[in-house]
This record gives sequence, C-alpha cells and structure tokens, in this order.
Amino acid sequence: MVFPGEPLLTVEGTLAEAQFVETALLNIINFQTLVATKAARLKIAAGGGQIIEFGLRRAQGPDGGMSVARAAAVGGVRSTSNVLAGRLLNLPVKGTHAHSWVMAFPDELSAFRAYAECFPDHCVLLVDTYDTLTSGLPNSITVARELREAGHELLGVRLDSGDLAYLSREARRMFDEAGFPKVKILASNELDEFVITSIRSEGGCIDIYGVGTRLATCAGPAGGALGGVYKLVDYAGQPRLKVTSDPAKSTLPGAKRWLRAVDGDGRFIMDILDLKDRPEAGVQPGQVAFDPANPQRHKTLPPDCRLLACHALVMEDGQVLGREVTLAEMADYCENRLRALPDGCLRLINPHIYKVGVSQRLLNLRATLLRDRAG
Amino acid sequence: MVFPGEPLLTVEGTLAEAQFVETALLNIINFQTLVATKAARLKIAAGGGQIIEFGLRRAQGPDGGMSVARAAAVGGVRSTSNVLAGRLLNLPVKGTHAHSWVMAFPDELSAFRAYAECFPDHCVLLVDTYDTLTSGLPNSITVARELREAGHELLGVRLDSGDLAYLSREARRMFDEAGFPKVKILASNELDEFVITSIRSEGGCIDIYGVGTRLATCAGPAGGALGGVYKLVDYAGQPRLKVTSDPAKSTLPGAKRWLRAVDGDGRFIMDILDLKDRPEAGVQPGQVAFDPANPQRHKTLPPDCRLLACHALVMEDGQVLGREVTLAEMADYCENRLRALPDGCLRLINPHIYKVGVSQRLLNLRATLLRDRAG
Repeated sequence: MVFPGEPLLTVEGTLAEAQFVETALLNIINFQTLVATKAARLKIAAGGGQIIEFGLRRAQGPDGGMSVARAAAVGGVRSTSNVLAGRLLNLPVKGTHAHSWVMAFPDELSAFRAYAECFPDHCVLLVDTYDTLTSGLPNSITVARELREAGHELLGVRLDSGDLAYLSREARRMFDEAGFPKVKILASNELDEFVITSIRSEGGCIDIYGVGTRLATCAGPAGGALGGVYKLVDYAGQPRLKVTSDPAKSTLPGAKRWLRAVDGDGRFIMDILDLKDRPEAGVQPGQVAFDPANPQRHKTLPPDCRLLACHALVMEDGQVLGREVTLAEMADYCENRLRALPDGCLRLINPHIYKVGVSQRLLNLRATLLRDRAG
Repeated sequence: MVFPGEPLLTVEGTLAEAQFVETALLNIINFQTLVATKAARLKIAAGGGQIIEFGLRRAQGPDGGMSVARAAAVGGVRSTSNVLAGRLLNLPVKGTHAHSWVMAFPDELSAFRAYAECFPDHCVLLVDTYDTLTSGLPNSITVARELREAGHELLGVRLDSGDLAYLSREARRMFDEAGFPKVKILASNELDEFVITSIRSEGGCIDIYGVGTRLATCAGPAGGALGGVYKLVDYAGQPRLKVTSDPAKSTLPGAKRWLRAVDGDGRFIMDILDLKDRPEAGVQPGQVAFDPANPQRHKTLPPDCRLLACHALVMEDGQVLGREVTLAEMADYCENRLRALPDGCLRLINPHIYKVGVSQRLLNLRATLLRDRAG
C-alpha cells in the first residue's frame, strides 16, 4: 500500500488473505490519514489556539463520525463534541448549549442563567441566537458577574455567525473592559485552515475554534478522499509490476525495505524505498536516490546521514504485536514527526513535498521488468 | 429540520427527547440525501447506461460505505461492489477481478482463462493491467471465443485507465468485428456526472460505469456535506424564532403544514410551508406563496392546482408506523418523483431550483416575531 509522504505499508500472506483485508485497510487508512492531516493543518493555522472537533452531524455516516474524532486526535485536535467518542476514546468532550436552549426560554438572559446554574465552572454561552453585540454579549457579561459573585468564573462564549474577526475583537474588548480578561472566545461556522488563517491575519481574538463539516468530511480542492492504493508487488518470490500508459503510475515491483534518511539532529531528509532482499546490497549514505516518477531527477544522500528502518511488524499470524498505544501517545508521536519534517513541508499553501526516492537497484528492477514486458 | 428542495421533517417531543435525536437524524439524513442526489445525477448523466457503486475503499469510514450503498440505491444506482451491503441490503453485487489477479499469473491470458473458468456466465475482464489495446482486449477476445466454444458468452470487459472515450470506441469496434456485439464495456477511474457526460459527448461506447470515490464521498464544488439543520420552531405551543444578521437565514417559526402544489398531470409546481394550526385558514389554490428569503418575490398558485399534504407520520411513541418499505420501492418512488419535477430541475449544471414558498400567515408570523424582538 503506498501513500503520498508515508510511503509504505506491507501485507504478506497468501493471495486470498491479502485480498481479504484490502478494502478494510484502504477504507480505514485512507480516510483516517486524511482526517489526521486535516487536523494537523488546522492546528498549524490556529497557532497557539485550540481546536475542537465539531463534525458529527455532518460526518459521512455515524461510524465515520467516530473515525473522525479518533483520527483528528492523532493529528492534534484532542477534544470533540462527540460524546460517545469522548467516552470510548477517552477524549475531553467540549462544546456549548444549542440555539434551541436559548429559544426554549422566555428570554436569552434566563436561558444563560439556567445554563450557568447547571455548569457553573464549565459555562460557555452561545451568543448569536438573537444578536451577538446587542444581546448575547451583554447578557453573557451579566452572567459572568453573577457567576463571580457566587464564586465561579464564566469559562467562555461562542460566536457562531457573522464576521468572526470583527465580533471576536469586540467580544474581547467588552469582556476585558468588564473585568473578565480570562473569558475564552470560541468560534464556529464553516471554519477550515484558510478561514482561520484569515481571521487571525485580521487580528481576530479567538482562543478556541470549533471545526465541524470541513474536518469531518475533509472537503477541499482535492475532494474528500486520499488516494492510497493496494498493489501486488511480489508473488511467490517473483517481483510483479502493473504497467500503465503513464510511467509515473507504474507500480514499484518487489518486496521492499523502507528507510528514512535523517541528519545529526534527527530531522528528516528524505525517505528511500529499496529492495528487501540482500540487505548487504542495500542503499547506503552517500549513494543516489531517484525520483520514481522521473528518474532523471535524483538526490545524493549526505554521507553523514543516518538511515533508519521505518518498517515495523505490527501484526503476525492474526495477532497484534506489542502493547496497545494510546491515542495520546499517537498524537505526541505525530506531533514530534511533523516537527522533524524539512522546512516548508508544513506550509498550508503550496508546501514543499517531502521526497520519497527509490534505490538504484529498485529502479533497475522496474526497468528490467518493463523491458521484458515490452519484448 | 429543513433541507433544500425537500423542505421539512418535523420532530415533536419533550425538549430532551427532541435534542437526543438531533445529531443522529442530521448525520443520517444529511449524508444519505446527498448520496442519493449524487446517484440520481449520475443516472441522468449516463442516459441509458448503468451505474455500479464502487466506493467502499474510499468511503469515509466502513459504516459510511454501507450508507453509501443504501442511499445510492435509493437514488437509482441499484448495484454495488460492496459484498456486505449486497447481502444486507439485498442489492446485486457486481464488479471484476483486481489487477492483482492478473499479476498473480505468469501472463494475462492465463489469468483471464482462469477467471473465465470460475465465472463462465458472469465473466468481466479487467483489461488494463499491461496494455489495454495491445494486450488486454486481444486476450479478452481470445477468451470470449473459448467461452463461446464451451457454450458460454463473455459478459464484458472493464477499462480502468487511459482515454476512456477513445478506448471504449476501440473496444466496441474490436468486439463487434470479432463477432461479439453483446459484450458489455464497463469503465471506471475517477468518474462523476461531468466526466460521464464528456465521455458520452465524444461518442464513448460505455455500457456500465463504475463510480467510486466521487459517489462515496460526494466530492464536488460544494464539498462533501449537505447543510440540513435542526431548529426549534415551537415550544409549549409558542412559536420560536432564531434571528441572524442575514434575514434569509432566520428560521421559520411555528409548527407547520407542508403542502405540494401539483397540476392535473401530477407534475410538481412548487411546495408551500404553512402554519399547522387552524387548517381552515390554510393556504388555498389561487393564493400567493412567498419566497421566505425575499418576500418581494412571490408566485400565485394556479387556481386549478391540487394541494397535497406531504407530511406523513412515520414514528410515534418510539414505534415505526406502517410496514417496512423495501429499498427497491424507495428507489421506484424516488425515480417517479424526479420525473414529476418541473422542467430544468434535473439539469446537471445550473439547474432550475425547485421553489419552496411560505404562506401569507407564516410570513406574517415571522414578521411579528421579528418586530417584537426588535421592540
């Protein structure tokens, strides 16, 4: 299985066994990788701001919503409004009341007071049911004062419509002037990494972003799917090749070793795919790695780099190996790896594409098989 | 709950009961409505051609893949490559072997022969593992001859890469010349309604389209989500209103009746939302219905139209009412309703938007509540 940037997952087994797991692996890994990537992009856009996953109502199927909460946490969005996901995945559940809470009371202030009574220490008020500036924010300041008199502090307010950059600046100013500099400002409403970047560039004062639809469905120019594929590369010890009219899309034949070149500080330089057999003939620092889509492009591995073996056996004879890794550990691991990427890889627009090259002998094998096929 | 074009689903209950089902209803109905719509659009694009749902590996979560198969069937895509969905939903399962089947044999012809031996009467061969024109199609014609000698007929071939319009014309010509005019030509590879339209406009000879990613995720300019919402409109017999800075987005207050104006042939003219109370004061043929987003736009209902009540009680006290409707019945119902839409509604680009108006008294109620709120 080959993914952009995370090049290789290998399944070894009989043909029937390997086929049997194909669709499940593609379904789970393609989508969750896409969501984790989107979550990481949102975190980058938010700078020091926090993100909450808000997407269940727009997720593609109820189980899709659970996958979203899990994968978003791996990518760095470590809280959710999905109560079941919070319980099953041990994630903090965060959110506010609905507009209907406010509309079920005779007036907004009564609704806010009733909510503050229920959650005196975790009270976040949704302020746009009637009018954010003239009703929601003044009423929430009233409740903030009443909570403080009773020995509590209002946690925050949520903006859910209108000009979020402007309204958040106004909200910050009003709370600061009223003596509540620690009240958090949440915002939601069709947010994504580009909207968040724009709000921040206009001086928006949002502490926490609730991101729903565009995280849950990963909508975007590329659509809501990651194009990982699952291909036969070796059968009974013989390397196999799928040919297409576009040479860049030919499969890379043979059982492989996956290596990562890192510098002295542990920063990633590039990944290299090599053949698995005869490790003594394997790629070494100082050798050349080739772009498989265009082998005229190549890069010499620095002689002083280290080559780390990235393949790890995670399942054997149907048994998961090693201890279970927690979601928090996965998220920490992901965050550390993102930090180790080359400069520019984390840019939101036109990022530097992390390089994945192939060894000379893998390139030679493909060329030989292509030639045999043509002849 | 209000959706574009299918305006109203109503939930009545205590506040807690109604809140409890909100997210599940939004999750299920938003996504499946989107998929059924996409499926219907694909059917329109394909003309007399058939569509197979091929999306499980790219669906957003495994359960998402099941929802896709179900909703696609409602929208008119009545077969799937998802074996579990086929079994649970009683849908025909259709597809071909994988590239890996071919790659597991010493050569393509041996692979085709082995597959034809397994499925002599349902054999569809994937012809692009090596080269469609010089290898896949000639080998499949050989197998078609061998099958015929053994008293069977090759069902079809699948194209999965390259210029599908050109390759399908060539495939059709080659099979026709070889005496196999009934062999079906399937095609797949990032298809959607626009690609299918383009292939047909170039004279492509495709009988069956396999549509995966773009049906399963409903990717497109609008992203992969339908924006249906769930709003409180009445509490304890009092109409409720959510105000926003954009008047078009204010909710429509009050418990409602949903009517459809149809002409003498049963074709739909428009839908009208009216208040539920005092049916004797309800909207009548010959009266005016208003665009809720811009009440200066209005339309007089033809005096000779019939007004059909569209609300039906489907669940009461936790019990589903009536007999279970089969998926085939839903699909037939959907197809008939699509046929009854006004001209232009089924256009794939810039369609005529089916009109949903509100009655004078519903418009008045909203205006009164907005005035009370402002005052």
